[in-house]
Amino acid sequence: MGEAGRENPVANPTGPLTEALAAALTVGRNLKTGTVADYIPQLARVNPDNFALAACTVEGHQGSVGDDAVEFTMQSLSKPFVYARALELKGVEAVHQRVGVEPTGDPFDSIIRLDAAKRPHNPMINAGALAVTSLLIDEGATDPTHRSAAMVDLFSAFAGRSLSGIDESVYQSERATGHRNRAIAHLLNNFQVLAAPVEDTLDLYFQQCSVRVTAPDLAVMAATLAAGGWNPVTGRRVLESHRVPPVLTLMFICGLYDDSGRFALEVGLPAKSGVSGGILAVVPGRMGLAAYAPRLDAHGNSVRGLAALRHLSTTLGLHTFACAAPAQGG
Amino acid sequence: MGEAGRENPVANPTGPLTEALAAALTVGRNLKTGTVADYIPQLARVNPDNFALAACTVEGHQGSVGDDAVEFTMQSLSKPFVYARALELKGVEAVHQRVGVEPTGDPFDSIIRLDAAKRPHNPMINAGALAVTSLLIDEGATDPTHRSAAMVDLFSAFAGRSLSGIDESVYQSERATGHRNRAIAHLLNNFQVLAAPVEDTLDLYFQQCSVRVTAPDLAVMAATLAAGGWNPVTGRRVLESHRVPPVLTLMFICGLYDDSGRFALEVGLPAKSGVSGGILAVVPGRMGLAAYAPRLDAHGNSVRGLAALRHLSTTLGLHTFACAAPAQGG
Amino acid sequence: MGEAGRENPVANPTGPLTEALAAALTVGRNLKTGTVADYIPQLARVNPDNFALAACTVEGHQGSVGDDAVEFTMQSLSKPFVYARALELKGVEAVHQRVGVEPTGDPFDSIIRLDAAKRPHNPMINAGALAVTSLLIDEGATDPTHRSAAMVDLFSAFAGRSLSGIDESVYQSERATGHRNRAIAHLLNNFQVLAAPVEDTLDLYFQQCSVRVTAPDLAVMAATLAAGGWNPVTGRRVLESHRVPPVLTLMFICGLYDDSGRFALEVGLPAKSGVSGGILAVVPGRMGLAAYAPRLDAHGNSVRGLAALRHLSTTLGLHTFACAAPAQGG
Amino acid sequence: MGEAGRENPVANPTGPLTEALAAALTVGRNLKTGTVADYIPQLARVNPDNFALAACTVEGHQGSVGDDAVEFTMQSLSKPFVYARALELKGVEAVHQRVGVEPTGDPFDSIIRLDAAKRPHNPMINAGALAVTSLLIDEGATDPTHRSAAMVDLFSAFAGRSLSGIDESVYQSERATGHRNRAIAHLLNNFQVLAAPVEDTLDLYFQQCSVRVTAPDLAVMAATLAAGGWNPVTGRRVLESHRVPPVLTLMFICGLYDDSGRFALEVGLPAKSGVSGGILAVVPGRMGLAAYAPRLDAHGNSVRGLAALRHLSTTLGLHTFACAAPAQGG
Repeated sequence: MGEAGRENPVANPTGPLTEALAAALTVGRNLKTGTVADYIPQLARVNPDNFALAACTVEGHQGSVGDDAVEFTMQSLSKPFVYARALELKGVEAVHQRVGVEPTGDPFDSIIRLDAAKRPHNPMINAGALAVTSLLIDEGATDPTHRSAAMVDLFSAFAGRSLSGIDESVYQSERATGHRNRAIAHLLNNFQVLAAPVEDTLDLYFQQCSVRVTAPDLAVMAATLAAGGWNPVTGRRVLESHRVPPVLTLMFICGLYDDSGRFALEVGLPAKSGVSGGILAVVPGRMGLAAYAPRLDAHGNSVRGLAALRHLSTTLGLHTFACAAPAQGG
Repeated sequence: MGEAGRENPVANPTGPLTEALAAALTVGRNLKTGTVADYIPQLARVNPDNFALAACTVEGHQGSVGDDAVEFTMQSLSKPFVYARALELKGVEAVHQRVGVEPTGDPFDSIIRLDAAKRPHNPMINAGALAVTSLLIDEGATDPTHRSAAMVDLFSAFAGRSLSGIDESVYQSERATGHRNRAIAHLLNNFQVLAAPVEDTLDLYFQQCSVRVTAPDLAVMAATLAAGGWNPVTGRRVLESHRVPPVLTLMFICGLYDDSGRFALEVGLPAKSGVSGGILAVVPGRMGLAAYAPRLDAHGNSVRGLAALRHLSTTLGLHTFACAAPAQGG
Repeated sequence: MGEAGRENPVANPTGPLTEALAAALTVGRNLKTGTVADYIPQLARVNPDNFALAACTVEGHQGSVGDDAVEFTMQSLSKPFVYARALELKGVEAVHQRVGVEPTGDPFDSIIRLDAAKRPHNPMINAGALAVTSLLIDEGATDPTHRSAAMVDLFSAFAGRSLSGIDESVYQSERATGHRNRAIAHLLNNFQVLAAPVEDTLDLYFQQCSVRVTAPDLAVMAATLAAGGWNPVTGRRVLESHRVPPVLTLMFICGLYDDSGRFALEVGLPAKSGVSGGILAVVPGRMGLAAYAPRLDAHGNSVRGLAALRHLSTTLGLHTFACAAPAQGG
Repeated sequence: MGEAGRENPVANPTGPLTEALAAALTVGRNLKTGTVADYIPQLARVNPDNFALAACTVEGHQGSVGDDAVEFTMQSLSKPFVYARALELKGVEAVHQRVGVEPTGDPFDSIIRLDAAKRPHNPMINAGALAVTSLLIDEGATDPTHRSAAMVDLFSAFAGRSLSGIDESVYQSERATGHRNRAIAHLLNNFQVLAAPVEDTLDLYFQQCSVRVTAPDLAVMAATLAAGGWNPVTGRRVLESHRVPPVLTLMFICGLYDDSGRFALEVGLPAKSGVSGGILAVVPGRMGLAAYAPRLDAHGNSVRGLAALRHLSTTLGLHTFACAAPAQGG
């Protein structure tokens, strides 16, 4: 058991954890606000009422409620895993020559800017993610098909099952309309930030955004981070344990766009959201959590997903800095 | 004991912890770079080679090495404690009507800006701290002397001893030359962000910055946060435990100016620095750490202090997200 | 007569010019949009339908229509004249050590920023005007009463009559509520931009903003600039002729806040507006124009005033760069 | 003759004007500072000591001194002419739906930003010029070869001779390395600012930047604007006269990057510079001036060119707002 005196709510996966997920689902269902992302038709076409919650403990116990079989695309949920992979392939120095580690609260989509060292501010924003993705390209596999297959394999290893792959329609649509990402990639190229050609980088980036997952997949992916890089379902090491802290740190400080601070304050977990409506959150040493509900708030985060995670954090006592109270503190 | 298999390095305070502090002192002493803050003569006059490290566990064991009797002024180290006090007095909603929770990487001192809601971005930057300090003023004590005495009492409660009080010379000097803070306060006043008159707010702010502490004092203050609001030396509750997580969260994401992300990544602890050369760091549930060395880097953080804390975090395994690896993760 | 072949519409002041003013008044009267400035009660209390237009040729012929006897306060209309005076007193180098000459499109009032040299961007924005006003203070007159009297005298010399002086109520109200200007002044003080103490500078600035004028006064003031520094009504030199070009240049590029470019494009005249609803425009070598109508657009410029000046420029062919077409250009 | 009492220094082209050019050449030659643009090898390969000055009056008298036969590429000198052409083709409303009219002092190349309406700020910066160039593409000529030929024809009409065409090597090099322009074009595409496909727009833009001219060519081009759209050498109308004022206005307020205000203040002429080292300036109703010297200052403007134009403006009295002094103003 964990620290003395703390109840472990996930010891029996069919018990309190599923109850907690069900309660959070009820809380989230009351929320009808938010707008489904519509910058590509494929995202807009989704059922806006889709709602799923899932959890996976570091012991490998899984639970899920709601539309847990519905697949959606990773979008920005891919960023922490690609960053983790780049750290493993290249090391922290090489990665952070190309991308910073500081948050940036910029909400304005009409601005593209780099930090004082002419790098993207961090790997959790599009500019930084493009820089990171470019590092995965020179793996010796010059064939783009290998690259996308390797990307699906990477996510599958975290998810603990062979994922169904890339949503071709979403990928092609992102590719055709991703003008802002294309703009960013060329600016990065201007400053020699990319480790690979612009078009190769964009292609792989759009592919990583288009990989299909379910909420339970995300929960296992998060649990693998929670377990220090071991996939608790497959029992295989997916990531060296010393690569986990930087990933979780950057998720904690910049994982939810310009609402990251509020989420850190209120929910207190390393997390990442995507415009498809997914959010994953990591409870280090304990479990991974995932939510999926496509209606987004003004920051681009799932309205119901946020509410559900806030409810879970509060009721299960998951805040990273809530463990501050020692046993003797009566 | 904590999690299975982890050695607790602080069980014997005179043992491994003091050794670790001594080793970190050696590491830091090699660093000769950085510049003592000189915007007021009182800060510039300090011995640049001063260097102290201190720790206090949540069980109340203390250790310190180096110039641990040297007093210096709190400066920005005061911000988390005043924020904590404001949360307790007014509640989280009232406080965050006046100040945001998002980081801002702005390094430029020729810009003063507020967030989209026309609030300072967070309580760890000067603008936000002024807003927070203004909330301590309408405590019924209309007498400014009471206010500054209450401020010293607040810090004393955290430090576990009666602090020697305000450095009049520093206070008067800050007051006479704090033009940028004065500018910020008037801009805040323009947007009705302050809960008290500009001059009262500035006075109390300059006073809180001028309270004298030692490195061991800071360590106990940090340990009080680490212990969830209980002072482990006096055994008295100083802060309600549910006020601790927001304080630690904001320290984690914005405690070291525009170097906060790098510190979070590398050291991984909620921390706060001040231009006097102090840094305090909180290891939740375990201990408080403090460093004091007046030479600052370009971000305004103590060069030796950072190095020492990095060394301590690495050797003692203190990174917040390093606890991600569960026992079964061989 | 002017250039060969150009008709001078103002040769007979009671003729075409007054007709043009009357026509422009009719055009402007149709506009009912805009909002009276209300940041101080004294400005909000004005009749929103007030509307006056006035002109004064460099030969001293004057004309006016509408509410031409109504007095209003100078506000930002004071800026070019105080800048002109500072140039005369200190020279262009000394003035522009403290204030830049580049436009800044910043519309956000929640930001205060300086240029790369830590000076305000130009003398037509509040920050720059404060820097400029500070230069008028060390004239040897240590008595603040002298300073404000000298300011009224300066404007009177431009206006060609003894102005009625400072609106005490507006001045006191600006002084009590000018928090943003106070913030700017302290930031300037922080960077040693001010040539005089903060409070003295603010007082004189608020006084210059509170001097009462009529639309015909403004027209004569503008005509004095149009005539190269000679007041065409009094026949007295008010400004050395070589000080006029920089004043007109900065009015042209930054005289109407973040709508300066559009005004320059469409109306094509050096001009300055104020939140009281006044606008003055200079037709170099020909005449001064003035409009007064208190309802402001989103940029802070008089809605009717802009429309009237646009109409006058078009019908009278006043655009600075419209004189590009030479006679032989059939 | 011009206004009563003013000497026309250009009445005899072989006389005072050439003397003035020669004197300005001497002034400029003393300057050895600045750096030749080197972002493409073709620009870096130029002789840094090249220096030419040229003038053309609205009567068609021409003069030039120095390396007046040396060809260089138009670069940003192309912007006012393409803007003029777009105004003529589409009208002012259609053009300014896609590009603003306000200056922006941004010097930072690591930022790409649009105005509040998500348009480039003005047609004299790269973003705005790309938007303007896109408007020239749907002229019915779907063949790119036609487009570039039409561009050379446009500049030739302004220059009064058949220009030698596009520097293929520069064009190909800009095309291969223009990552920042490519980034801008994609961001513009994202906001539907471009009227033509990204690659077509970029190609035509890089071509317009690569057209070869001499300093005397630029002087005639400027003289054509000075003469209200009539080419004084060929006697042909190149631009409708009412299109000239907006072009000159925007050159005046944003023609020299973030040094535009200083140039307007000191030299007082509508002007445009390019990174090849050319600057053209328009004296409305009087003449066009051109300078060519490849060493650039920190703002990207020709060091010697600026000095020569400043000298010419001062000695010949060319400041736009210096005509403010009427004859009677003794």
